[in-house]
Amino acid sequence: MLFTADSSRTIRELEELRTLTADDEGAQRVAFTPVWVEARRWFRERFAGLPVEIHDDTAGNRWTTLRGASDRAVVIGGHLDSVPNGGWLDGCLGLLAGVEVLRRICVQHAGKPPVTVRVVDWADEEGARFGKSLFGSAACCGSLDLDEARRLVDAQGIGLPDALRRVGIEFERVKESGCELASAAAYLELHIEQGPVLLDLGLPLGAVLGTFGVERHALTFRGQAAHSGSTPMNRRRDAFLAAAKMAQEIYAIAARSHGGVCTIGSCTTLPGIVTSVVEECRITLDQRHLDAAALAAMHAEARDAAARFAAEGGVDVAWERLCHIPPAPFHPDLIAFADDVVRETCGTSHRLPSGPLHDAAEMARAGVPTAMLFVQSLRGISHSKIEDTRRDHLELAVAALDRLAEKTMHWVATRSGSC
Amino acid sequence: MLFTADSSRTIRELEELRTLTADDEGAQRVAFTPVWVEARRWFRERFAGLPVEIHDDTAGNRWTTLRGASDRAVVIGGHLDSVPNGGWLDGCLGLLAGVEVLRRICVQHAGKPPVTVRVVDWADEEGARFGKSLFGSAACCGSLDLDEARRLVDAQGIGLPDALRRVGIEFERVKESGCELASAAAYLELHIEQGPVLLDLGLPLGAVLGTFGVERHALTFRGQAAHSGSTPMNRRRDAFLAAAKMAQEIYAIAARSHGGVCTIGSCTTLPGIVTSVVEECRITLDQRHLDAAALAAMHAEARDAAARFAAEGGVDVAWERLCHIPPAPFHPDLIAFADDVVRETCGTSHRLPSGPLHDAAEMARAGVPTAMLFVQSLRGISHSKIEDTRRDHLELAVAALDRLAEKTMHWVATRSGSC
Repeated sequence: MLFTADSSRTIRELEELRTLTADDEGAQRVAFTPVWVEARRWFRERFAGLPVEIHDDTAGNRWTTLRGASDRAVVIGGHLDSVPNGGWLDGCLGLLAGVEVLRRICVQHAGKPPVTVRVVDWADEEGARFGKSLFGSAACCGSLDLDEARRLVDAQGIGLPDALRRVGIEFERVKESGCELASAAAYLELHIEQGPVLLDLGLPLGAVLGTFGVERHALTFRGQAAHSGSTPMNRRRDAFLAAAKMAQEIYAIAARSHGGVCTIGSCTTLPGIVTSVVEECRITLDQRHLDAAALAAMHAEARDAAARFAAEGGVDVAWERLCHIPPAPFHPDLIAFADDVVRETCGTSHRLPSGPLHDAAEMARAGVPTAMLFVQSLRGISHSKIEDTRRDHLELAVAALDRLAEKTMHWVATRSGSC
Repeated sequence: MLFTADSSRTIRELEELRTLTADDEGAQRVAFTPVWVEARRWFRERFAGLPVEIHDDTAGNRWTTLRGASDRAVVIGGHLDSVPNGGWLDGCLGLLAGVEVLRRICVQHAGKPPVTVRVVDWADEEGARFGKSLFGSAACCGSLDLDEARRLVDAQGIGLPDALRRVGIEFERVKESGCELASAAAYLELHIEQGPVLLDLGLPLGAVLGTFGVERHALTFRGQAAHSGSTPMNRRRDAFLAAAKMAQEIYAIAARSHGGVCTIGSCTTLPGIVTSVVEECRITLDQRHLDAAALAAMHAEARDAAARFAAEGGVDVAWERLCHIPPAPFHPDLIAFADDVVRETCGTSHRLPSGPLHDAAEMARAGVPTAMLFVQSLRGISHSKIEDTRRDHLELAVAALDRLAEKTMHWVATRSGSC
């Protein structure tokens, strides 16, 4: 007979975790804090009675392994840690759904599936305390910059290495966790969308194409302060005018990019007084696209536009790169499976990129064939206690991940090549 | 014989005043401070040997009167007080030129001109210490809001009434100074332009049409914060986009107004982070025009545009008035005289409005026929130690004020009606 995952149990466990680790302001499972340690203790109990091996790697990621006929492993990931005042689903939905899928596989295959199945709880996905997201997965996947991470401090002045030592992690060895990837043949993750796309389409689930690459810059336009009363309009070198022209331009750039997004999130002005033309205007520009070439083109268009607006206004413009993250496209075979299982579960599927980063991006960039499922987010809001998803959608999500894991196990088992 | 003012003496006196009251950072004659009191002591000495009467009114304005055959008075004004780190000409050029003109009239008319001539040194034109400009002239001309002024404090927490008491001025009586206007038949003022118009035209002098009226507001656009990666462009309610559209629009509004100016001097954003669409964007808008109806029309156009941009972007907009000052157009006969004397002195004249306010605006609004002369400002910059004017232009300016005073005395002497 065919067994299926018990999605109602996953919802019960999510509610139990909420009771254990949330207060009136939301989830408080910030990584490396006592609440997070308590959540992990509770999480370990979920595997009681199952023939699994559980250990933490050198970066603090927790691996639960159900050994199969082959060492080649399907890895299902998520994260227990939350932002302060976080939602009840972000991170832990995928993790507890993974636990349920592992339970189902264990029963289905009498404790010995054809390939190995692992559930990984990534450490500090949110980066809420030290400002560095995807810490555990970046360490494991090799992209973590140790020199940069070594200098991180929290709001209390505690350094990341110190905070790690208090929970038994030795900072200088975190990248040794990379050995966990040796057997990884596929990576799967279910996550709440954190945006409004599925909500707008009225769809419960979607197949994720990959995570956006990011170009993040600060642009500083410099003109000349001048008295607002005595300076004729045609004599002004108005830094705000040049910067403001970017606001509409980035919408045009995003539209031409077919699928990219651009955001000006901050604007500051100097001297910033009501009686002076703006001498200096600084804006931040965040650009994202799933395709590296398209992202580069969007960025080039923004540079051209800023130079044109600066020249029109007789002002200068300087760029400062704040961040560059390459896109992480997922594996075409696994995207197709994800699309299939969403259609099988809900009737209709939709493929969409992920704007926010996820641990899946680290795995994809490390060369592990990767796929993600998104479940609809009510109001499109995460990182808030009002984050929520309809119960029937949560049940569909667990069922879809279960089907995706089964298809992926078969794909791994029959695929040629070593891992 | 015809006597003329000795403009080289005015320049020498300006240099003497600078030596007495400036440091390496510029002029330090902030009103009601010891340096200002010292400047006034020096100023009183300029009239030694002249048949004049000198007194301070209840607002601290210093009136020097050369009594003529008629009590009807031509008043020539300026101000000794400066901003901190101010220029060497702003305010005191007009005042010391007035002293020189009074000297010339005294000689020309053997101590008894056909009409009375007065030189007034207005108290605290700059408002540098208490944030209320035109204090002395507003008190004298009746527009000062006593309730508002009573509450003003400086950076050290000293209230305006206390500061006035220390220099012998009783706050509650400052508006009694209005009696000084009883005989005022005309008001003249020479000032450095504080803008680049005459510089651009290559002209030494200009005839001022009046001072701009001002509409000053803060506009707050309110949309919705949303994740920069997960929120499609067509789902955004971007407060910065709506606000930024105002930047170009105000240039179009100013162009249509024929002579007005509009300035966005400040822009702030909330949450103001690189990864979020802007939820709230606040800009300040300063609009100025010489014509009250044109000013009102500019303001109405800005309101319409802001409402349109808000509607386009699905955001709200709220207005808060920060300041309203009505325009102060000068007297047509005196503007014509000013135009004449500039042409007679320099060959070419130009009529221009004043963007910044001056004491002349208070006199004009109080119904005293008023005119001003502007002399070219090098670099168009005031309120700075680099404020400067070419020496030959300063000499032309004194000569032009002298001619203007003579014409105005004749106009007052022959004009019908009492004052």
